[in-house]
Amino acid sequence: MTVEPRTELEILDRETCLALLAGDVVGRVGITDHGAPRILPVNYVLDGESIVFRTAPGTKLDDGPRAPACFEIDEFDRENRTGWSVLVIGWLEEVTPYDRAWQHVQELPIDPWAGGTKDHVLRLRPDLFTGRRIR
Amino acid sequence: MTVEPRTELEILDRETCLALLAGDVVGRVGITDHGAPRILPVNYVLDGESIVFRTAPGTKLDDGPRAPACFEIDEFDRENRTGWSVLVIGWLEEVTPYDRAWQHVQELPIDPWAGGTKDHVLRLRPDLFTGRRIR
Repeated sequence: MTVEPRTELEILDRETCLALLAGDVVGRVGITDHGAPRILPVNYVLDGESIVFRTAPGTKLDDGPRAPACFEIDEFDRENRTGWSVLVIGWLEEVTPYDRAWQHVQELPIDPWAGGTKDHVLRLRPDLFTGRRIR
Repeated sequence: MTVEPRTELEILDRETCLALLAGDVVGRVGITDHGAPRILPVNYVLDGESIVFRTAPGTKLDDGPRAPACFEIDEFDRENRTGWSVLVIGWLEEVTPYDRAWQHVQELPIDPWAGGTKDHVLRLRPDLFTGRRIR
């Protein structure tokens, strides 16, 4: 087990981060909107090492061709004051009908929980996986 | 009940957002680190309408005197595919011993769950509260 001295947190390795991401269905996208950070919950699937989710047209999420973004999942035990979190740092891009991946992403099980038309597919391509667990 | 037509989500009013924030102890801070968004879990207290938490010196969170930031809490029911989230948009600032609020924040119940020395106190001052609930 690797421990971060400053925070005394256990550092989760890349494989553990990916396993935790594969085991959940809802997380939070972090984007920058005119220089200010925003956090937006989405339900997602892990497709290879990418985070894929659907969104409605006109959200802040598909505002441009490719943007720096992050994605976070976590689990907390409030009673025992413990928990873990995984952060994916990468780039957010829209998958359009002109992309080779379009047919593939249509077949992913990513029905949004919320209603409304959500025909835009976004993909966060990872540069880095980081994870921490309270010991 | 107010509904957002595009997403069919219920819009939570400011009072509901504040009540949900008062009722939880752990959430996620969103910051921008060299132009890229980051999401970091923290345990917190709601102090008036501000989010207050402790952090170790040298984190990305106390990197500067005042930075645009956000803070998110949520709760999801994965089985019934429902949930809610609250997003606070505002400014993150450090409370130092030179600030009038220093004594006050020392008395807040904000012991961090993680170990390590966490003698920096940060406060997110809100500009806006937004919340959504899946119906």
